[in-house]
Amino acid sequence: MQTKKRNGKFITFEGGDGSGKSTQSRLLAEFLKEKDIDSLLTREPGGAPGADEIRELILTGEPDRWDAIGETLLFYASRRNHLRLTIWPALDAGRWVISDRFADSTLAYQGYGNQLGEAAVRRIHEFTVGDFVPDLTFIFDLPAEEGLQRTMGRTHNEDRFEKMDLGFHERLREGFQEIAQKNPDRCVLIDATRAVDDIQQELRDILNARLLS
Amino acid sequence: MQTKKRNGKFITFEGGDGSGKSTQSRLLAEFLKEKDIDSLLTREPGGAPGADEIRELILTGEPDRWDAIGETLLFYASRRNHLRLTIWPALDAGRWVISDRFADSTLAYQGYGNQLGEAAVRRIHEFTVGDFVPDLTFIFDLPAEEGLQRTMGRTHNEDRFEKMDLGFHERLREGFQEIAQKNPDRCVLIDATRAVDDIQQELRDILNARLLS
Repeated sequence: MQTKKRNGKFITFEGGDGSGKSTQSRLLAEFLKEKDIDSLLTREPGGAPGADEIRELILTGEPDRWDAIGETLLFYASRRNHLRLTIWPALDAGRWVISDRFADSTLAYQGYGNQLGEAAVRRIHEFTVGDFVPDLTFIFDLPAEEGLQRTMGRTHNEDRFEKMDLGFHERLREGFQEIAQKNPDRCVLIDATRAVDDIQQELRDILNARLLS
Repeated sequence: MQTKKRNGKFITFEGGDGSGKSTQSRLLAEFLKEKDIDSLLTREPGGAPGADEIRELILTGEPDRWDAIGETLLFYASRRNHLRLTIWPALDAGRWVISDRFADSTLAYQGYGNQLGEAAVRRIHEFTVGDFVPDLTFIFDLPAEEGLQRTMGRTHNEDRFEKMDLGFHERLREGFQEIAQKNPDRCVLIDATRAVDDIQQELRDILNARLLS
């Protein structure tokens, strides 16, 4: 479906909540600015007006309001809007795009965490995204307990996923690790237990080696 | 996925806008009431609180806000919510459910009208609905021009689809006809050019023969 070559590079940050990927994606956007690369920092769910409205639907309301199948459809409806109206136009214009979460999150959360399975989520993925893939994906890896502890003090609107049990968060972590193993050309697993500066230096080194050399 | 036997009967009304199916579904619900059959009259998109919020997202806003792929995902997210929280619980409790539009509309509008194709829409269908099917589906058939003329005077919120060109509405009609041909055990094509009373009598005769005999 989307086989065309796009001019900019697309970099995604994936991992559990509390893994530090939002902070790191902002720091990486600053690095691109220093390099005079025009970039756009965005995030999912959301990233376009329609997608942001779907984000509100997903992240608020009663915990049983959506089941895993309904969530998967909403995440992909939001992603389609984000791609069409934000990501693809920016890449076509030669801008780089950094997204805090993208499709690997749906595979890890709904496919692995909620156990819908990889094949089922992949069918929805192909319908929505075609064969478009990020140029580089950083997957932030953290023990499930540590991620949960880091987010406990927060008050924000991703509560619905944080309330899932520890078994869910362990399946989630294993899912992200498996995605990284299966896609070594695209994905790099990042040890998220380290200091912010150390992690950022690793990301910049990887970016330099893979996309700027 | 959903192979279980449900206690009530599920009857769907399908067809283009302006074909009279909303009026006819209300009249058929009255007929069930006369027969002392406990029934629920519902409609798509919507039919449950979350599904109604998705309905608002789909039917309002700029015409290019969603493309056919995004619409399909939103319709199915809404349908999943409608099934889980309204249709399946009612059927399990032994109630009959009449729905003004269901899955055949997505196949006809997005699959045929917008030309996503039957196979693509079917993949999303199986992910969301499994093998659950209506017991009886009335497909209201009307020349595309006549349906458009009938809706021209209306001011309601389905404008986005009415603004599609005549070619779209012709593909839509052919789609509905093909669905009826391919599913003769479930579907009956209804000539919607006739008088309201004549159509309602036909529906009641079919219902008596198929589900009440």
